[in-house]
Parts: sequence; structure tokens; C-alpha cells
Amino acid sequence: MLSKNTVKFIKSLHQKKYRTESGMFFVEGEKSVLEVLDSDFLIEMLLITEAFEQKHGTPLQFFTGKIERITQNQLEQLGQYQSNDSALAVVKMKENRAFSPAAGEWTLALDEVRDPGNLGTIIRIADWYGIKRLVFSPQTAEFYNPKVIQATMGSFTRVEFFYENLGEVFARWRQPVYGAFLDGKNIHTLQNALPGVILMGNESKGISQESGHWVTEKVTIPGFGRAESLNVAIATAILCDNFIRISLQ
Amino acid sequence: MLSKNTVKFIKSLHQKKYRTESGMFFVEGEKSVLEVLDSDFLIEMLLITEAFEQKHGTPLQFFTGKIERITQNQLEQLGQYQSNDSALAVVKMKENRAFSPAAGEWTLALDEVRDPGNLGTIIRIADWYGIKRLVFSPQTAEFYNPKVIQATMGSFTRVEFFYENLGEVFARWRQPVYGAFLDGKNIHTLQNALPGVILMGNESKGISQESGHWVTEKVTIPGFGRAESLNVAIATAILCDNFIRISLQ
Repeated sequence: MLSKNTVKFIKSLHQKKYRTESGMFFVEGEKSVLEVLDSDFLIEMLLITEAFEQKHGTPLQFFTGKIERITQNQLEQLGQYQSNDSALAVVKMKENRAFSPAAGEWTLALDEVRDPGNLGTIIRIADWYGIKRLVFSPQTAEFYNPKVIQATMGSFTRVEFFYENLGEVFARWRQPVYGAFLDGKNIHTLQNALPGVILMGNESKGISQESGHWVTEKVTIPGFGRAESLNVAIATAILCDNFIRISLQ
Repeated sequence: MLSKNTVKFIKSLHQKKYRTESGMFFVEGEKSVLEVLDSDFLIEMLLITEAFEQKHGTPLQFFTGKIERITQNQLEQLGQYQSNDSALAVVKMKENRAFSPAAGEWTLALDEVRDPGNLGTIIRIADWYGIKRLVFSPQTAEFYNPKVIQATMGSFTRVEFFYENLGEVFARWRQPVYGAFLDGKNIHTLQNALPGVILMGNESKGISQESGHWVTEKVTIPGFGRAESLNVAIATAILCDNFIRISLQ
């Protein structure tokens, strides 16, 4: 049976303050919980419905941690989903390590992307394109925010991320830094591109002056209509698609 | 002064039922209201703060309809924005007309895209790429939903849209129908593409069998990582970017 303290603890994880304090976050929904079971994240506690247990006996049999059986109704009280008939996992955060550049590999850097939905979507895009490492400025949204985790659709288990001052990262960087600017070079006309970092800026302010200083090539997505801009997750997707295509040509 | 009936009427426009009944919807925030003032939409009533009036005298002087002066606090009670210090417009819906294909022009078709945020983001993407016409299956989210209007960032004023049975549209169509499928042809390897319709499917079910029947070329976005799929708005952006690039080569 679910204790009052457990309920209180999981509910506290909706707030950043308590996530930071405990070093824990939660993951909910069938797909995401299965992904975290299949990852190198440490699961502190698994809360599952009977339906989930019956359907996923195989991945569960290799889980040796704490399991609580609960009802759909109880699950929905704990998480952020209106409907959750499967599972919720309380998971240990990973320690933030220092980023070291790896040659010949694409990296994504975010300069203060503030919206959790955007951050989650960008993580999913990085995973799609096989970009394994992401560097976030300290003001970027929190990786473990439940809205970020939800928007990644499980991709949060497959990327490495680093919160660091971008200026310091770029100062020791020896690869191209491609920055997304409205007045950059048309990405469609780029003939070749050595793997490097794709730098995306804040939703309204764009790339900061400090980070912009390190950009070796400004790029832009050509527009053909009258929209003034694109959402940062959309722009990230289009730039990743173009860079990967060009670098494989 | 704002009458109780006006307040009640604007609040009712949060619900589809009352939007349909009255043929009205609302647009809020500085940028979107300026865009609608600059469009061919008929504005029934404009609610503005003193700050908005002082800042935007020029576009306002050509507006001959009803204007109500209200405070930021009142504005925030009426709309969906937590913060709105500028304006809200009550706007007349356009009549739904029948779609007729235009040769040599890109069109976007959505087969039951249900999420209002996705629909709004897709409209903004279409506007960015100069795609002026969108065809929606009847089960697609409602164009005039406030969340759709918000996500378009003003682009809703610059596209034409048609709610129609897609099978009937495609039956009289004489241009390519490019459908987004997970098992289609890699869009990066496409050498040329005649303008036609880009067909995107539902968030979870993809393109329906009925619409899929009319697809002349299945395309896919190549993945290099382990994410199983991309969000439909992200996929739309990447496909539009590729098709426009290829057709201009």
C-alpha cells in the first residue's frame, strides 16, 4: 500500500526545489517508463498498475528495486497526466559532469531555451538525428522538469547533457560553431559542413552576445512567406536535418 | 465601460460551441492583434489598453469599428493569456469555401491533426515557407481555437484554409500527393519534386487508409538515432524545408 509519505514525496517532485533537494525526478506513462527501465538511469521506485504488470512482465523481471502496485486513479493523482493507466517511476538524477568536445561528432548547444516543451522536443530531435551530446547554458530549462521529460517521449534516456557556461565551453572548442541567426548564410546553399556544434538561442532574444562571439558560421533558414520567425524547436529540427544531410553528402 | 454582456460573450468564445453559434473568435496579444488589424479579417470589437493605444495610433486610426478601452487586469480576465497588457480583438470567422487545386503551387493537407498547438505551429511553418493554402480533414483541430490562433503567431491571417473530406479533394487532384510515412523514400535522396500536396497524418495513427490511397509518393525523414518518431509539427517543418529546397534546385 502506498504510504502518505510516499504520496507526499512524489507530489513534491513536481517542484524544482524538491527535485534538487532529493536528487530525484519522476517519469510517467507506459512508453517513458519502459524506456527508463531499459536505460542506465537508477530507478528508486516503480509504481505500476496491474495492467502494466501483466503486459510487461519481461522488462519487469529484471528490475530488482522497489515496486508498488497502485490503481490508475492513484497514479493520476501523483503525476501530471490526466490519464495514466500504466506506470510512474521515481528516478535518480545523473550528476552533472564537465563537457569535453569530441572531434567529428555533432553537438547541440542551447543558449537559454526557457520553455520546457521546447527543450523536451529538442532532445527528441537530437535523438532522432543521432546527436548524443547537448550543452545547455545554466539559464536553459531544467532537464528533469516533468514537462521536459514528457516532451522527449523517452529520448531523455539516450542523450548526454551538460549544464555549462557556453562561453567557457566554446573557448576550449576546436570545431566549427554554427549559430542560428536571422541574418546568417542560407542553410540550403551550404555545400559542406564539418561536424561541430549547432547553437540555438533563446525564444525571444536569440543567441546572446557572449555566445555569439564564438560563432564561426552564422546560418539561417530561408523563408518564402511573411512569418517573421520560427519556433526554436522547429528551427532546431530544420537545421539538424540540413547539417546531417550536408555532412553526409 | 465594458458591459457584463460583453464580458460574458467574450468568455463564451473560449468554447467551440459558442464560437460556432456566433461565428466569432478572439485574438489576443500585441503582435497578433496588429496582424489581424493588417489583414482582411473583419474585427467586430477591439479591446485595448491605454498603452496599446499610445503605441499603435497609426494602425488604429484606420480602424472604424467598435473600440473599448480596458485595463490590463480586465484583459487578462477575458483571454487565455496570463499576461496581456495590450489588446484583444473579437473577429468574424471566414466562411468555409470549397478547395480547388492550383497547379504549380505547394499545398499542405492535414489528416486529423488533433492537437491545437500542433495545428497552430504548422500554420506558422506554412506561412514561413510561403505555402498559402491548407486543406484539413473535418476531424482536424478547429482553426479558430484560441490555442491554435496563439501558436500561429499571427500567421493565421495569411493562409487560406479549407475543411474538406481529403478523399474527395484528392479524387479531383492532378498533382503529386507526397505522404509522410515511416517507410517512405528518404527525403534526402529525392532529386526533384514537382509542387503538389504534402500530406501529414494524425499524431498517433498517421495517415488514414482512405487518404493514403491517393498518395503518389511516400516519403520519410531519415533518422540516425533511436527516437521512434518525430512530433507532427516538427516532421511537417522538415518536409516543407526539403520539398521547397528540392523544387528550387
